[in-house]
Amino acid sequence: MIDDTTTLGELDEEHILAELLPVLTRHTSATVRVGVGDDAAVLAAHVSVVATTDTMVKGVDWRDDWSLPQEVGRKLVAQNVSDLAAMGARPTGLLLTVASEPNLPLRWLLQLGEGVSAAAAEAGTVVVGGDVSAAPGGVVLLGMTAIGDLEGRAPVTRAGARPGDVVAVRGSLGRSGAGLRLLGQGAAREEMTGAAAQLVADHCAPRPPWEAGAEAAAAGATSMIDLSDGLVRDASRVARASDVRLDLESDLLAVQVAALAEVVGEEAAWADVLGGGEEHSLLATFGPTARPPHGWLAIGAVAAAHDAESPVTLDGQRVEVTGWDHFDRSTAGREGVAGPRALPGTTKGRSETDRP
Amino acid sequence: MIDDTTTLGELDEEHILAELLPVLTRHTSATVRVGVGDDAAVLAAHVSVVATTDTMVKGVDWRDDWSLPQEVGRKLVAQNVSDLAAMGARPTGLLLTVASEPNLPLRWLLQLGEGVSAAAAEAGTVVVGGDVSAAPGGVVLLGMTAIGDLEGRAPVTRAGARPGDVVAVRGSLGRSGAGLRLLGQGAAREEMTGAAAQLVADHCAPRPPWEAGAEAAAAGATSMIDLSDGLVRDASRVARASDVRLDLESDLLAVQVAALAEVVGEEAAWADVLGGGEEHSLLATFGPTARPPHGWLAIGAVAAAHDAESPVTLDGQRVEVTGWDHFDRSTAGREGVAGPRALPGTTKGRSETDRP
Repeated sequence: MIDDTTTLGELDEEHILAELLPVLTRHTSATVRVGVGDDAAVLAAHVSVVATTDTMVKGVDWRDDWSLPQEVGRKLVAQNVSDLAAMGARPTGLLLTVASEPNLPLRWLLQLGEGVSAAAAEAGTVVVGGDVSAAPGGVVLLGMTAIGDLEGRAPVTRAGARPGDVVAVRGSLGRSGAGLRLLGQGAAREEMTGAAAQLVADHCAPRPPWEAGAEAAAAGATSMIDLSDGLVRDASRVARASDVRLDLESDLLAVQVAALAEVVGEEAAWADVLGGGEEHSLLATFGPTARPPHGWLAIGAVAAAHDAESPVTLDGQRVEVTGWDHFDRSTAGREGVAGPRALPGTTKGRSETDRP
Repeated sequence: MIDDTTTLGELDEEHILAELLPVLTRHTSATVRVGVGDDAAVLAAHVSVVATTDTMVKGVDWRDDWSLPQEVGRKLVAQNVSDLAAMGARPTGLLLTVASEPNLPLRWLLQLGEGVSAAAAEAGTVVVGGDVSAAPGGVVLLGMTAIGDLEGRAPVTRAGARPGDVVAVRGSLGRSGAGLRLLGQGAAREEMTGAAAQLVADHCAPRPPWEAGAEAAAAGATSMIDLSDGLVRDASRVARASDVRLDLESDLLAVQVAALAEVVGEEAAWADVLGGGEEHSLLATFGPTARPPHGWLAIGAVAAAHDAESPVTLDGQRVEVTGWDHFDRSTAGREGVAGPRALPGTTKGRSETDRP
């Protein structure tokens, strides 16, 4: 008898899958030739296949008192699909891994599945396989692999930015970081309303611009990256991979800051826009004659790199964000923006529970 | 200063990856267009993409006192590549996920990487991406996703077996189960020699017939499955998916039993051949006029199914193996072969540590 109090330890794998798979495969996709239930999934593709994977660990990447299971499922899809989008690909299938302590409620898993399924459908894809296994007490680990199709286009890597290119962003900046900041300040989620509640919701279940990556690739983006670790940190990765400098302009970021400042204050808003993680918006560069598709916001320009120079500048000044790292405990709680434009209190946002 | 005593908690992600990636990418592959280091990997493919994923949890799927890290790495690759092979595909890229407690020695991770890298090279593929994240104390979880290419062939599913087909196996039977049986009996690995030591090695690091799946597909296999949960249990899956019955013949299995019987005795050898898990050999069916490729051993024939009948028979008698299940603790320690040909003590072999 399965009800809302059933835990995974009371069921065998077959019964767990019998409950979970209908939730995960509620939607269909034309690119799936063989879905769940065989040794492996078979996905239609053109010439190249794009693949990425990400893991979320309870107590490290989410907290049950902050995030609903549906939101955790959405976030898992968002992280992976935005990595595909950053290559210029569209998703063709998702593989979901669950490694859990036996006393996880089945209800939680099915609600996670609802979030996965809904976000996958928004992104135009479905779950085509995965793995469920037991883990020691206290452990709930979720893994996702997303497979994507370039539809004949060349992949857009981090290494193609050239001096003279425009730097542009698609999607919001700093909202996830600001939401984490509010949660970290101890505010109870159920008492939040309006803009604050929306920032927290955007942290718990980001909604990346699913379509924008393929559109940017088709429009000739020269480089692209998913903003998972903060604007400055991810822009630095493009700069280093392309051997260029990215010059950002604060005037062009002001509209993003203003949207946050009314809730978290201007100083924190700047820190979140420059350094807040888990936003999963896209940063791309476009050649000087290319026209970024609708919805992309120019935020700066690409310049030639010179040795020993900051890879990213803001209004011509060095800007550097020291971020949070999964393994290096010495950085936890020491986040901040360094340099001439020092902006304390940057929410790096990779971890909900490792913050002070 | 990194040495053999360094743990993951002493390093940041960047340094962990700087150590691990050279180990993982020691070999190259012509199907990789963009490997590790960008948002996602890009793999060359023909028309369809095959994808599968598997997870191994320390304390559930391996024990550090039984398995070397290189062996755990080999087993992770074996599980995944054999799932691709069972669809008729060749691997084009692997994604590796590590979620670990911070005090895991880096040395262990690099030795795992050596096993992954070596097994991947044998299978003709490489690691093209992945994810490293922190997990709570006591937890080491490994995930792998394998992406494969059908090279223009149709996928070989579990559902294509037809009455009159030949049932054939490629690779060994029961060796991994027998090796687990020896470990479970408390024998110290370093004191084992000869055939016993080899059975244990085959359990800790199975070497599936990497190439055989694509060859069988090209030769017209009508159905195929990876033997991960035991011959009878996996044959039953093919029978149910194809709506047929698989009739196995003990005479044709005798050679496999004889190889084990000298070490574990005849009764245990039968139990391991029929029910032992984690072998990762392939079971396929071939049409009556098809010629299975070199190395495939005929072990029976496909018959029409009748209602309420056993999906698999041995010498015309019902045979059923009750196996171990990851979540259902009530089955742990109650493994065995039921029915007329009852063979007690079957090693199901999905778990090293949940055995009595």
